[in-house]
Amino acid sequence: MEYTKCWLEYPRIRSEEGRTLTLQNLAEGSVGQSAEKELALGLRGLYGIGLTEGGPEAAVTLKTDGALPDGGYVLHAAKGSVTVRGGGAGVLYGVFALLRHLQTAWCGWDELTLEEEKRPSNDLRLLNHWDNLEGDIERGYSGRSFFFRDNQILVGQRTVDYARMAASCGVNGVVLNNVNVRAAAVELISDRYYAPLRRIQEILAAYGIRMYLSVNFAAPISLGGLGTADPLDGSVQSWWREKADEIWRNLPGLGGFLVKADSEGQPGPHSYGRDQADGANMLADAIAPHGGRVIWRCFVYNCQQDWRDRVTDRARAGFDNFMPLDGKFRDNVTLQIKNGPMDFQVREPVSPLFGGLKHTNRILEVQIAQEYTGQQRHVCYLIPWFKEILETDLMCREGGSRVSSLIAGPNQGMAAVANTGDDPNWTGHDLAAANLYGFGRLSYDTSLTPEAIAREWLRQTYGRSPEVEETLLKILLSSWHTYEKYNAPLGIGWMVVPETHYGPSVDGYEYSRWGTYHRADRNGLGVDRTARGTGYCGQYAPALAAIYADLETCPEELVLFFHHLPYTYMLKSGVTVIQHIYDTHFEGASEAEAFLRMVEGLEGKLPEDVYRRMHARFVHQARHAREWCDVINSYFLRLSGIQDDKGRPIYA
Amino acid sequence: MEYTKCWLEYPRIRSEEGRTLTLQNLAEGSVGQSAEKELALGLRGLYGIGLTEGGPEAAVTLKTDGALPDGGYVLHAAKGSVTVRGGGAGVLYGVFALLRHLQTAWCGWDELTLEEEKRPSNDLRLLNHWDNLEGDIERGYSGRSFFFRDNQILVGQRTVDYARMAASCGVNGVVLNNVNVRAAAVELISDRYYAPLRRIQEILAAYGIRMYLSVNFAAPISLGGLGTADPLDGSVQSWWREKADEIWRNLPGLGGFLVKADSEGQPGPHSYGRDQADGANMLADAIAPHGGRVIWRCFVYNCQQDWRDRVTDRARAGFDNFMPLDGKFRDNVTLQIKNGPMDFQVREPVSPLFGGLKHTNRILEVQIAQEYTGQQRHVCYLIPWFKEILETDLMCREGGSRVSSLIAGPNQGMAAVANTGDDPNWTGHDLAAANLYGFGRLSYDTSLTPEAIAREWLRQTYGRSPEVEETLLKILLSSWHTYEKYNAPLGIGWMVVPETHYGPSVDGYEYSRWGTYHRADRNGLGVDRTARGTGYCGQYAPALAAIYADLETCPEELVLFFHHLPYTYMLKSGVTVIQHIYDTHFEGASEAEAFLRMVEGLEGKLPEDVYRRMHARFVHQARHAREWCDVINSYFLRLSGIQDDKGRPIYA
Repeated sequence: MEYTKCWLEYPRIRSEEGRTLTLQNLAEGSVGQSAEKELALGLRGLYGIGLTEGGPEAAVTLKTDGALPDGGYVLHAAKGSVTVRGGGAGVLYGVFALLRHLQTAWCGWDELTLEEEKRPSNDLRLLNHWDNLEGDIERGYSGRSFFFRDNQILVGQRTVDYARMAASCGVNGVVLNNVNVRAAAVELISDRYYAPLRRIQEILAAYGIRMYLSVNFAAPISLGGLGTADPLDGSVQSWWREKADEIWRNLPGLGGFLVKADSEGQPGPHSYGRDQADGANMLADAIAPHGGRVIWRCFVYNCQQDWRDRVTDRARAGFDNFMPLDGKFRDNVTLQIKNGPMDFQVREPVSPLFGGLKHTNRILEVQIAQEYTGQQRHVCYLIPWFKEILETDLMCREGGSRVSSLIAGPNQGMAAVANTGDDPNWTGHDLAAANLYGFGRLSYDTSLTPEAIAREWLRQTYGRSPEVEETLLKILLSSWHTYEKYNAPLGIGWMVVPETHYGPSVDGYEYSRWGTYHRADRNGLGVDRTARGTGYCGQYAPALAAIYADLETCPEELVLFFHHLPYTYMLKSGVTVIQHIYDTHFEGASEAEAFLRMVEGLEGKLPEDVYRRMHARFVHQARHAREWCDVINSYFLRLSGIQDDKGRPIYA
Repeated sequence: MEYTKCWLEYPRIRSEEGRTLTLQNLAEGSVGQSAEKELALGLRGLYGIGLTEGGPEAAVTLKTDGALPDGGYVLHAAKGSVTVRGGGAGVLYGVFALLRHLQTAWCGWDELTLEEEKRPSNDLRLLNHWDNLEGDIERGYSGRSFFFRDNQILVGQRTVDYARMAASCGVNGVVLNNVNVRAAAVELISDRYYAPLRRIQEILAAYGIRMYLSVNFAAPISLGGLGTADPLDGSVQSWWREKADEIWRNLPGLGGFLVKADSEGQPGPHSYGRDQADGANMLADAIAPHGGRVIWRCFVYNCQQDWRDRVTDRARAGFDNFMPLDGKFRDNVTLQIKNGPMDFQVREPVSPLFGGLKHTNRILEVQIAQEYTGQQRHVCYLIPWFKEILETDLMCREGGSRVSSLIAGPNQGMAAVANTGDDPNWTGHDLAAANLYGFGRLSYDTSLTPEAIAREWLRQTYGRSPEVEETLLKILLSSWHTYEKYNAPLGIGWMVVPETHYGPSVDGYEYSRWGTYHRADRNGLGVDRTARGTGYCGQYAPALAAIYADLETCPEELVLFFHHLPYTYMLKSGVTVIQHIYDTHFEGASEAEAFLRMVEGLEGKLPEDVYRRMHARFVHQARHAREWCDVINSYFLRLSGIQDDKGRPIYA
């Protein structure tokens, strides 16, 4: 299938056809070869410039520098002469940075003057693919898997181009398969799949990316034929040790395992009366000799809750399950914690686990697969949201405790549930590629602004067209807020069609087993999570807990997450809760309509196929945003009986 | 797979082992052979009595009687001597009646004294199977298809036993495949399937049952390679004529076609700007030379409705679409009309089409597959509901116009969407077999009472055990009302989980495209279908329209179907609408709990496997009825703010 190269198309900046530059490549290993290959590709595309081998006087020098940390680089460019030094994959990152700067500046090769030194903000920068071996992708909205099909592993040019894209924005780890490990996926760690996995692993390694696999905690039973998967059972421990020997013999350099245990029906240590640390450490011990890492997800909660029960609060579950285990995990275990305490809603507070855990490695897990944020049919540029999360101060230690600093340091970092598939544009919505790119860039450098990232991405993707750039930039930067406006109000979440998670259904999760309730009645809505309610607030550091618990200080975009309020409660903006619901929903729908008009202004200015794909999605979004607006407003007018101040149409 | 014979087990009444009766079988054709076979099976089972061939003085005489209508019989029994005369399948029905009477009376062979003459109330008594060729059953809750598997047709002993069961209660026509004709099912009318279809047809014919097939209106395109399926196109007409010749050459005696056209995405004449009569008549002309009949479903409505639209009313659609065509259909077309104007809800008014159409053949379509009535996990004996429908007087002609009389006469009758599958007990819930049996019996003899039918069925199925019989009878006879009590209140319907149609979801269909709305707000609920509202009432004869339109005379079990009422509206029962909702829901849940206790009293009195299966379902029903009760009550307490008079727990 034909597909684009996204931001690696290298559109021509100006023609310098016939020109050749000398290159001295002192960068080591397959990464060094990739760096040279990428440089050649970029220069040919941007300028038509060729490369030939040169010596110490060469125009371009690439060099591995052991003094720099892995992924760090130093880039000098002046008057057509360029040096890139890097630690590990850093030299490759430096080349990608060079090409990015050339495109951002949109200048000739000789015109770039630059002195840049970068070190990655995060050690681990991972993509988690929820691809199944059958070829479907759980919560995938961009076609089918390009890793798996009909229980076979696919390896080819698309694998290479994927690795190039991932590396170009700083991703250094990839989990190939779904965290729900079922059917043939259980056998990924067996002879059945080692050979093709090794081919993928080598492709990724050449781009500085480590491969990881999701494994099933019950593999000793299903794969090993044992009667138990109890982590404290000696035969289970031996089985995993021997299995690890076998795996790393076949897949040397494998990054390790991602594990979803005791979560939504997946097996785990709880089945044997063991705790999460028992489970994670047993695996960690088995793979430690090979330098492997266990990434253990914290998405453990009771998914058989009774909606009548007002005491149990799913939001509390992660903290309640994992805080008592702080400090008990091996060094080569990292807990992977979703950004919020629920599940990738359009707005949630930051998980209190990030602030709570003091002696445990942490990964911040976000989701660029737009499960709850429009499924790549709505535009929703998520980088502003991730930036807000990173900048949230959890007030848990002296001298600042922003999330970005809490996840920095060795064995920590960020992971994103990936939004890719085999669609020709990789991400379904053309603009969703900005999330893929942006996640990588932000996890590599958390100091970047969402605007800067969006501009980089736009310039690299669509070339230099001020009108295209400014229009799409405006859409991207407002898109998350627009989506939030017509979605569930004020942080309460979950007003979505069950299972598909697409489209409005105010009561869809209200009388369910999922622990996801808005508690709306004719007088008000929201969940009291203060000490008077579920007590969730108390999981934060006292200063922050006090802020959330106090209506005067609670951030209003989260106020219904923390408080049950009457519709007539006056917000600081000077409107009541009910009027806020009406206003934001009408605004959100209007903004989606405005996006469509803005995109229509780009007809003829974008490539025809890009325009057609994009236009169709914006038409759908505008219509669907109106549906969201009307359903939510009608529901709350019927319930509250309070008319819209402005007399706009609500279908009571 | 092992399976039961349901009510054809013939449990031993008393042993007369060794005894032999003489039989003179003058009944014609394969039906006559079946009659003898069934008599032999019954006598062997009930008494251990054998049969030998006898002459004019034989103890039993079976005889075809051309003076009787097809399916009619005369049965004499006295002092061990029995004569059965029948028209067509009537002689077989007479034998089944004899065996039924022996079991109902639970008497010895010589003790039965009986003089019975019966003629079928309805000409057509059909089962519609929604079985797909892949083997699944649309809205099937009893396992997989026993007609189809992996695009193959299954023919075997189960086919024979199915035919026996169907014939034993009077069914005389069977549509094998789903009305949604997709994939391989389109090719049922091709060489690919004629041979095995003919084998099924012969098995059915030996039991007096005609086979019918659902066909796809666009078959000229998909099967014939034409560019159109326009019913007025000459090439389409020829194609169907030639196809009909081919079909009847291969399947002589085929009953005809069932067609779902222009309905929920199925193709039909509307695609070509033609009306339903154009479509039906074209097919009817093609198959008339072969004695074939077109059964044309009236389930035509806009399934892309906008919930904001308060003018369009799905309930009006059948009448609006078909009334203008009254008298335009060929004699060999019969319109198949669902009992109510919506879709098999637990309570609906009778479709006004039954009263409206004066010059068109009609079939009353009911559904024993419990799509909206508990999916064979809840017990819901539907015969009382069907009886109520049959007895409804539509006030459309002098001298009485009960539905039963409107569908009587040639080319008319009843059809049921079947509830069978390959489960060992055929119907998932053991007690659901009473609906299969009951539908056949009631369609054959609409004068029967639901209680009489239930007693017959219980006695034949479980033998003579007063405790079992009285307990299960009580459950059966109250089960529909119990289910209704904890379901959507007062005829409004549709408070059900979308797609699966199982479990409560008050707003599940409220903001949907399906035309199914309760319009509940903080003040009241219901749909105004009077002249002030959608005008649906006006589709009934004036006298009946006036009854429905007037709150004083509107039957209260349907009051929210016809009227939007405040929660505080006082019903004739002396409680308000909201209190009625609370009361009925608590009652329904308690009754389901009581069913469980009653069934538990039968432990040891039912066969162990039957008891276990039944018990598990009643446990589930009790729990699920409580869920229904709690969700509906909570929703309306939150919305209305009105407390339960009796202070029972509602989870606000």
